[in-house]
Amino acid sequence: MKIKDKHYTTIWVNPHNPSVVQTIDQRLLPFKFDILNLACPDDFEMAISDMVVRGAPLIGVTAAYGIYIATLSDLTGSRRKSYLKETAEKLLASRPTAVDLKNAVDRMMKEIEEYDDPKRQSVKALEIAEKIKNESIESSKTIGKYGLELIENISKRKKGITVNILTHCNAGWLACVDYGTATAPIYMAHDKGINVHVWVDETRPRNQGSRLTAFELGEHGIPHTVIADNTGGHLMQHGMVDMVIVGTDRTTRNGDAANKIGTYLKALAAKDNNIPFYIALPSSTIDWNIFDGVKEIPIETRSENEVKYIEGWNGKQIDDLLSMPYTSKAANYGFDVTPGRLITGLITEKGICDANEKSLLQLFPEQN
Amino acid sequence: MKIKDKHYTTIWVNPHNPSVVQTIDQRLLPFKFDILNLACPDDFEMAISDMVVRGAPLIGVTAAYGIYIATLSDLTGSRRKSYLKETAEKLLASRPTAVDLKNAVDRMMKEIEEYDDPKRQSVKALEIAEKIKNESIESSKTIGKYGLELIENISKRKKGITVNILTHCNAGWLACVDYGTATAPIYMAHDKGINVHVWVDETRPRNQGSRLTAFELGEHGIPHTVIADNTGGHLMQHGMVDMVIVGTDRTTRNGDAANKIGTYLKALAAKDNNIPFYIALPSSTIDWNIFDGVKEIPIETRSENEVKYIEGWNGKQIDDLLSMPYTSKAANYGFDVTPGRLITGLITEKGICDANEKSLLQLFPEQN
Repeated sequence: MKIKDKHYTTIWVNPHNPSVVQTIDQRLLPFKFDILNLACPDDFEMAISDMVVRGAPLIGVTAAYGIYIATLSDLTGSRRKSYLKETAEKLLASRPTAVDLKNAVDRMMKEIEEYDDPKRQSVKALEIAEKIKNESIESSKTIGKYGLELIENISKRKKGITVNILTHCNAGWLACVDYGTATAPIYMAHDKGINVHVWVDETRPRNQGSRLTAFELGEHGIPHTVIADNTGGHLMQHGMVDMVIVGTDRTTRNGDAANKIGTYLKALAAKDNNIPFYIALPSSTIDWNIFDGVKEIPIETRSENEVKYIEGWNGKQIDDLLSMPYTSKAANYGFDVTPGRLITGLITEKGICDANEKSLLQLFPEQN
Repeated sequence: MKIKDKHYTTIWVNPHNPSVVQTIDQRLLPFKFDILNLACPDDFEMAISDMVVRGAPLIGVTAAYGIYIATLSDLTGSRRKSYLKETAEKLLASRPTAVDLKNAVDRMMKEIEEYDDPKRQSVKALEIAEKIKNESIESSKTIGKYGLELIENISKRKKGITVNILTHCNAGWLACVDYGTATAPIYMAHDKGINVHVWVDETRPRNQGSRLTAFELGEHGIPHTVIADNTGGHLMQHGMVDMVIVGTDRTTRNGDAANKIGTYLKALAAKDNNIPFYIALPSSTIDWNIFDGVKEIPIETRSENEVKYIEGWNGKQIDDLLSMPYTSKAANYGFDVTPGRLITGLITEKGICDANEKSLLQLFPEQN
């Protein structure tokens, strides 16, 4: 999508030097736009673990490029093999929970293992990494097309008056390669000339909404308003939200969806006010082995300091401030689970389905 | 309640100079404990609108003292009358949602109108203001006693294992004069030796939870944990909340309750998980003239900068940081309305009743 009218994806091979990969340093957004060079496997490991890049799809693509960069090494024979294996292991350990990361690394390693010639191996590695990147873009695009129909219908019903969409956290192009998941339908609707306005939940404690989603919507010219996470229910009670679209980190076989903490509360409010609540997801994030999301999806607990100290821009750099009594405790749960019964539909790259096992299996019969 | 082991109320007449009222500057809490002198009507208007004092009951008491301070003026005759009237109007305009403010100002003006002699008028004004203050303390105490029974019952059922109570915003003693409304039962339970632990919603955008509720609970020695506002639903899904108690700024005749933005979302989650959800309120905050809270209670919109800039302590002073793109818009709605159907009970100084007109009128037959 666009930043200052120029088209970007979140990660790309340096056009002037194909042995360097470049990415947007998301730690500094929206306050500073910096591009970071990733030139050796350690750079990739750091980029993932330090959250220079974040979002399950982007983490996968980054790891794929990390393997490609490792194949540029001059090492040969068994030393080369163990170097590649170590790189894969380090990348896998950089954010161990993301399923896309494992999928991407496993696929890369499998595709390049037959090549003995270093040069041919790295050509193949680059080809597969680019393929994974392009598949992610395609997946976002198809999710966008399916979701676009939903927005178009609301716009028609409202006779062209602005469609108000609420989203939580960042399931935008910054979490993917381009378009995003939850935001893909929004970008497509906007590009098609449909009037859309997005309510952006700030998404405490890490503010991915106010920092990343607001940034990417703003750069692409989409009208949006940042709100405290507490606000959505009130807006829905007063007819100020036409639909909710969010992303997900893991969806169960029966359609329960784990997403950033607070999503469940918005789903309850949407249900209470008869507002459609959609989850947009690439099917790679469906965990076909589990059923009851609330019981079975493990929820990450993170440092209490993310609640205790609030991060922002002091005019020169990113800084933080104490937000509560130093002696008080804080708790920091990363995700919550929205039961399928509260979800109007799952927007996947295969189409839209109800959030239950039967409907999911109609879209993905191979999982039967 | 206690601060560093000394007993305080939130507002009092300076014992050394009765023409000055003193209050805790809540803008600086929990980082700094400062007492502010309020010496002329403008000080009171500023104290209310700038949120030096906040919380419906305390706002009412503050406004009452504001009228008292106005009566200390040397003006006489019609100029005095219009000065008092202007003061009343300014105070009324300082915060739009709280009904206590209007009740207190109207009561003060009515009680003093018959006095022509400035001196006698100000003696009367002080008497009534102190009366309003003491009534508030008594009201908090009785609310506390009724609410205590609910906590005791849960504690018995749990055989003495910690009772986990979630609260939103600050309906503590800092919002009242002493004890608080939502916190009164908690203080009484703790003082009686019942094991309680409080989940404190940070309450964006102004963080009254993480700053004020955490502060007052901590100073009084009550175990508590601050959480992002997004967290309560997850805790409820996992059996980590036994009850919710919050305050309210205005309750309608049929039991709908306006409270700090985000309360409605917690009420929905409590309902979805079968957790009792109580509103604690002095009956002075009931607006007997309106029925449908969502339609009829006007909701204050505040400056977008409260969302855009995040306030906290930089180690030396209160400071703020930009939390989102400077060019993005933010919206800041102060309250939302929780429909009576989601409320397990209203804890008033007359007892506990269901959140509907019939039950309310049984407790307050004089409103029939």
